[in-house]
Amino acid sequence: MGSRTARRRVLRISVHGPSAHRADMLAVEEPLEIRIGGTPLTVTMRTPGDDIDLAAGFLFCEGLLNPSVDLRQIRMCDENVADVTLEVAAGRPAEVPAAPAAPAPRLPRRPQDIGWPQEDTQVLLDTQVAAQARRNFLTTSACGVCGKESIDAIRVKSRYDVAADPAQVSPGVLASLPDRLRDAQKVFASTGGLHAAGLFTADGTLLALREDVGRHNAVDKIVGWALRDGRLPLSGHVLLVSGRASFELVQKAYMAGIPVLAAVSAPSSLAVGLAEEAGMTLVGFLRGESMNAYTGAHRLMVATLAKH
Amino acid sequence: MGSRTARRRVLRISVHGPSAHRADMLAVEEPLEIRIGGTPLTVTMRTPGDDIDLAAGFLFCEGLLNPSVDLRQIRMCDENVADVTLEVAAGRPAEVPAAPAAPAPRLPRRPQDIGWPQEDTQVLLDTQVAAQARRNFLTTSACGVCGKESIDAIRVKSRYDVAADPAQVSPGVLASLPDRLRDAQKVFASTGGLHAAGLFTADGTLLALREDVGRHNAVDKIVGWALRDGRLPLSGHVLLVSGRASFELVQKAYMAGIPVLAAVSAPSSLAVGLAEEAGMTLVGFLRGESMNAYTGAHRLMVATLAKH
Repeated sequence: MGSRTARRRVLRISVHGPSAHRADMLAVEEPLEIRIGGTPLTVTMRTPGDDIDLAAGFLFCEGLLNPSVDLRQIRMCDENVADVTLEVAAGRPAEVPAAPAAPAPRLPRRPQDIGWPQEDTQVLLDTQVAAQARRNFLTTSACGVCGKESIDAIRVKSRYDVAADPAQVSPGVLASLPDRLRDAQKVFASTGGLHAAGLFTADGTLLALREDVGRHNAVDKIVGWALRDGRLPLSGHVLLVSGRASFELVQKAYMAGIPVLAAVSAPSSLAVGLAEEAGMTLVGFLRGESMNAYTGAHRLMVATLAKH
Repeated sequence: MGSRTARRRVLRISVHGPSAHRADMLAVEEPLEIRIGGTPLTVTMRTPGDDIDLAAGFLFCEGLLNPSVDLRQIRMCDENVADVTLEVAAGRPAEVPAAPAAPAPRLPRRPQDIGWPQEDTQVLLDTQVAAQARRNFLTTSACGVCGKESIDAIRVKSRYDVAADPAQVSPGVLASLPDRLRDAQKVFASTGGLHAAGLFTADGTLLALREDVGRHNAVDKIVGWALRDGRLPLSGHVLLVSGRASFELVQKAYMAGIPVLAAVSAPSSLAVGLAEEAGMTLVGFLRGESMNAYTGAHRLMVATLAKH
């Protein structure tokens, strides 16, 4: 595994005083190439570490793993290249590639029926998943892409009913999470250059912390860890992210079945829109002893002022 | 143009006091689909506004516009869809698609020689640029993707010799830029949810400010504006970004010929590596009256302490 920090000589400049060279620690950013069956799928700029979780979480959050398609293996074939082998999910051999939700043009419906050898079935599976990935990355719409449509079109339907999650979290617990996350962060203190994502139970116990130059990677690493550890869906859990809450982060939390997403900073309009539609609780500006609940306030144990 | 902010009713929660509903302003995040000749190229999640600049800057920073390929037109065919029409650059009709730097397999070398109609030449140009885009997005390397290789492989060679830029900037001017940027920011104050990028002259005059939910979009909007305004290369200029400095942001500044990139927060290892190789000045942690110079300190007018 590559190092997560790198030492660097910098010139520390003060407007008034003299300047001096000193050592500084940088957060390492390097590309991770994710391949499916040896074919490049995507490259993400990430901080090395937990790369197999990152690849697994990325595929899961993109909806490429589903009840029909499982991970067989993820192999690091280089320190910056993760090669994924997929398989038809156990117990459901007839579902894929036999009957994808959307018909795959120019591919036989049941390769086993026409006597394809096993390796061709694997190629077919890889090809279908890669095609699905491209559809996800490049969602198109004949009538344009507006905010509401994109919630329908870009988001990948979660397999979990997050809206029905009965979790209850107290504001006092939520308010304590940023400090708990910071206390547990190892790399941030030295570089100041990493985003963090922390997975907590509803009573505020930290289960997993991941740091990365990219917020989305930190969340993928958490989801990939939970997937490989058999913990999905993450019902009843709270995910805290160190920065802002974008559409992409809400989507990842939704895919993993997390009912409460809290961010230290602001959410975007589309993040709020998706959280609302998914029935998630979205908290922003979680700082000090206050916070904003944008959606799903019924999960927060608060007394509200009577309307006046 | 879509709105940049959206009003939303939120529950403001205090741990100790009562909670109350109030209005909050959100930064709008919506997908922009960029098409070339009608074919979808990519989707970026962005804050609406300056979308034509965003599309132009994105294509330029990806190296898809070059001495041989020009923009003919960018048309918003929907409020979230930008369709780009390319053309062979004026005065260089034989260069593209006749002789791309890398030979294009299965395409005739000089379509005009074999009597292709004009529309087919356009299709050929669009196809070649889209293929180049895919190569950029999905850089692969038989021997893996390490940090140093990725500087060579992922970065798109700038057409400007940034290393030779003789710009000189005083630390006092640099220290004043974050306040100047904040004073000029319209949307941040209301939402807290936007990144900003500001283009300054070396004496600290603000030329352009763009705000977006994505830092990379804010920079693309600046570069696209400069491109369309005939201002490239941005020699002698300073680009300030509100957050951290990633590899991607250094690459965009490098492509536009900007010699000095300053960030309010930390740079990554690969950002520093690329800035060094490109001969750029990279300043981080620009806060209050101090800053760190990671590369190119010769452009900063500072007295350093003698080594001891």
